[in-house]
Amino acid sequence: MKPPVVSIVSKKNSGKTTLLEKLIPELKKRGYRVGTVKHDTHGFDIDIPGKDTWRHKQAGAETVVISSPWKISVIQDVAEEIGLDEIVERYFGDMDIVLTEGYKRIGKPQIEIFRSTAHSTPLHAKEDPRTLVAVVSDIEVDLGVPRIDINDVQGLAEFIEQRFLQKRS
Amino acid sequence: MKPPVVSIVSKKNSGKTTLLEKLIPELKKRGYRVGTVKHDTHGFDIDIPGKDTWRHKQAGAETVVISSPWKISVIQDVAEEIGLDEIVERYFGDMDIVLTEGYKRIGKPQIEIFRSTAHSTPLHAKEDPRTLVAVVSDIEVDLGVPRIDINDVQGLAEFIEQRFLQKRS
Repeated sequence: MKPPVVSIVSKKNSGKTTLLEKLIPELKKRGYRVGTVKHDTHGFDIDIPGKDTWRHKQAGAETVVISSPWKISVIQDVAEEIGLDEIVERYFGDMDIVLTEGYKRIGKPQIEIFRSTAHSTPLHAKEDPRTLVAVVSDIEVDLGVPRIDINDVQGLAEFIEQRFLQKRS
Repeated sequence: MKPPVVSIVSKKNSGKTTLLEKLIPELKKRGYRVGTVKHDTHGFDIDIPGKDTWRHKQAGAETVVISSPWKISVIQDVAEEIGLDEIVERYFGDMDIVLTEGYKRIGKPQIEIFRSTAHSTPLHAKEDPRTLVAVVSDIEVDLGVPRIDINDVQGLAEFIEQRFLQKRS
């Protein structure tokens, strides 16, 4: 059974990672196994320069794995970007929920973060195609979906649980 | 078809990563797709502190993926260590060869690096069970298998190609 996927989206620098840092433990506390996917359209360099696996990758290895008794990590070149559905299928089969940071152009249910101190208007307009399921914001805003205060992480976890998780248990 | 797996093994600090850094491009030059696996028995922290995916992992996400158009990386908690065969099956299906750094207790064909400036005796004795297929060293040493000079990376690539790769093409 594939886990539900919820995308956390926003305009730049609205605090997606910061929100996820609070939301993940809140969902874990409720007993759910949480996976995350970060969408990086600009490329990334995840490994620490100088570490052995980074040196393998730099030397031209196309796929590099580091494996320990507690963790496994894989870095892999891809000929073309792997779609979100394929990622979920490959890596998240045993999770209860997958939260993505980014992927605002993919048609998964989206929760927008809108911080009025960072931007004057939200990413989504009220009349946008209805992938938006909630907005998390520091001010009142009407996007035609439930609005949750940016500091109410419990409320957000509650919303996600009711909407995406309770039918599973 | 599963790629051949060759383990680069040695006593500590004999230059496994340094040798792999030279060997990988030499094999790539010959047209092979190379994957590597590093065995880390002590645990590792592969991601850069402060980066978004590291923050997801720290916050309790069990599986974290970062995906770009060119690369994908996965960091995953495991309940128990994933065996080398399983790793090869999961991640290296499209490689021509997999080189491991470590895994000296696993019964894959092994190439030992012996540097006399680092250790007085090799890891393998001549009478060891015959997983050893070659020794790469800075001095003459008889382990009952071909010996290749530590600076002769082309010779090592040649050996690996003949022994493990040519029957594939």
